[in-house]
Amino acid sequence: MVLSFKFECQACCSHTQARAGVFYTPHGLVETPRFMPVGTLATVKTLTTAQLQATGAQMILANTYHLHLQPGEGIVAGAGGLHKFMVWDKPMLTDSGGFQVFSLSKLRKITEEGVTFRSPRDGRIIELTPERSIQIQNALGADVIMAFDECPPYPAEWQYVAASCDRTYRWLERCIKAHERKDQALFGIVQGGVYLDLRQKAAASLAELDLPGYAIGGVSVGEPPELIEKIVKATAPLLPREKPRYLMGVGTYREMARAIAGGVDLFDCVIPTRFARHGTAMVQGERWNLKNAQFREDFTALDDSCPCYTCQNFSRAYLCHLVRSREILAYTLLSIHNVTELVRFTQRIREAILSDRFATEFARWLDPAPSSDAIGSC
Amino acid sequence: MVLSFKFECQACCSHTQARAGVFYTPHGLVETPRFMPVGTLATVKTLTTAQLQATGAQMILANTYHLHLQPGEGIVAGAGGLHKFMVWDKPMLTDSGGFQVFSLSKLRKITEEGVTFRSPRDGRIIELTPERSIQIQNALGADVIMAFDECPPYPAEWQYVAASCDRTYRWLERCIKAHERKDQALFGIVQGGVYLDLRQKAAASLAELDLPGYAIGGVSVGEPPELIEKIVKATAPLLPREKPRYLMGVGTYREMARAIAGGVDLFDCVIPTRFARHGTAMVQGERWNLKNAQFREDFTALDDSCPCYTCQNFSRAYLCHLVRSREILAYTLLSIHNVTELVRFTQRIREAILSDRFATEFARWLDPAPSSDAIGSC
Repeated sequence: MVLSFKFECQACCSHTQARAGVFYTPHGLVETPRFMPVGTLATVKTLTTAQLQATGAQMILANTYHLHLQPGEGIVAGAGGLHKFMVWDKPMLTDSGGFQVFSLSKLRKITEEGVTFRSPRDGRIIELTPERSIQIQNALGADVIMAFDECPPYPAEWQYVAASCDRTYRWLERCIKAHERKDQALFGIVQGGVYLDLRQKAAASLAELDLPGYAIGGVSVGEPPELIEKIVKATAPLLPREKPRYLMGVGTYREMARAIAGGVDLFDCVIPTRFARHGTAMVQGERWNLKNAQFREDFTALDDSCPCYTCQNFSRAYLCHLVRSREILAYTLLSIHNVTELVRFTQRIREAILSDRFATEFARWLDPAPSSDAIGSC
Repeated sequence: MVLSFKFECQACCSHTQARAGVFYTPHGLVETPRFMPVGTLATVKTLTTAQLQATGAQMILANTYHLHLQPGEGIVAGAGGLHKFMVWDKPMLTDSGGFQVFSLSKLRKITEEGVTFRSPRDGRIIELTPERSIQIQNALGADVIMAFDECPPYPAEWQYVAASCDRTYRWLERCIKAHERKDQALFGIVQGGVYLDLRQKAAASLAELDLPGYAIGGVSVGEPPELIEKIVKATAPLLPREKPRYLMGVGTYREMARAIAGGVDLFDCVIPTRFARHGTAMVQGERWNLKNAQFREDFTALDDSCPCYTCQNFSRAYLCHLVRSREILAYTLLSIHNVTELVRFTQRIREAILSDRFATEFARWLDPAPSSDAIGSC
């Protein structure tokens, strides 16, 4: 469909559905599997472009809903698009705004035409339709744009989700029609809630459209985490092998590892930067609250095997001091580390797939039951 | 007194008392005149060490009062001192805590022995004496440490300030006696409020002590700004020419330029980082509120003659968007610029002094009455 985009599978795992590949975009390539940091308002919170590049991130997200409200897509377009506005010259993706309309807005109303909601910023009524979402995303100018979909809540009745899926499919057809830029790849989104039959139906009908990429959406909305894996395993095999697969909103070690085993290539999540702003470091599968007294006089690095600026320079004691003092530098240094940590986690998985050692090296994360050394769902 | 410290005067202005020099410390040299950013809690707010180095800052401050309360000087000493704790290998200075005790603490009580006050952190009673302040500063390990003084409020009666000055002198003698580290230079502080006779008496008696450096303290406490210049002009000439002179808490363009004309070498102030956290940029002598609508679609750099990372990469429109979105990156990018701006301002003055063009090139700032192109007291 669009010449600039291509996905190449480089290696497949012999024990799982995991694969290593390269996704080519007009702003460069993305080596998969790979975690993508979220830059909601055209900033991955607390990080400069230089710091973000150093994390190893190859592709980042921004949010259509947020950028439409502030500063407005016209200003971003005036700057020459998102890449130039925020000074990020590598691949970017924008979501459609659908998820935020459904999760953040009050007083929303869904019709066949689209969704109307009240702006949380100034109270004005905003209508978002498939056409409008695509127009906004065309103006923002990310490499990958997402179809406008409904993200049903959890729990939701089968009947509601089935009707929602059908409407989301009709919305997708309108998105494809509205999409105007050949230098942007439009990904479709598989919805269907926790109902595997609806998920499979959606995946199969989306696959027929031969889109440049596919996402599995509507997970991480409150359902038990083990359902995410079931949804991935039921859905990913139905999506075309020669196209990238993106699991939206997932970014814990375990869920990423298991989704990769199910054939997923791309992930995004706000947790590395959100945890950082709460003083939490992600270290080799664990979550550490840096405020804890045990770190007050610990003059070692967070993780001396981590190449990030934070670990190469600062001690746990200093980070503990900054967190206790509520100093902004704490959030920056922890964001640098946490984003690096998740990008590296997917990079290591990629390397393991390339040498076909994924299933053994990451067995700890692939066990059906959480192993005792993994704390929480980090 | 201490071999590692030396101040060399390189050039004197033929029209004013301004001078360019080099102050040598165990952690390197400081080319004067120079602005020193403030890193209250062992962090120049929002900036990483790498970002701070790139501003051109050669010497930074930290606050004894704040660091004594959190994390405590024992932990800083355990890390190997402030330089290692915060990862800054260039010159550093700590204040004595005197100013903060008098400006921030409630329920303080001053006696000949020292000051007792209630910790704003946990309510415990803390006693700070000249000996204790020096012990803490010896533990923190900055290159320059400051004598423990009383900073009288403004306004204050002549009689009160006179008695306070005498006590501050006796405290200085105790500081000198308590000071134990030859790799730290103890600076004395000239107090005296707005009373020039008291200022001159203090300066003359401090000069006799042959300290490695001298500060003029107790300004910027609410007195009219023009009094700062009068105090500097009455005081600086009485301080030894071969020692550095430091005007505490001053960091506006005009006040620095005029104090340099009076013979001052070093400055510190929180305004570049504080302004940044309020969304204000300091640009060539002006203050710009980046939230203003005029910047929404202004795709030019803040100041295209500024070499800082912010000006070299980002637009006013992007900064405006970040400020309006209350994104932390706004504060970081504006701090990078504002600190660079004030350091460069003093660097440019230094270069002008070296070529004896200070009085003409900076005439705009030296005029008795504020010229019309200078907005506020920025």
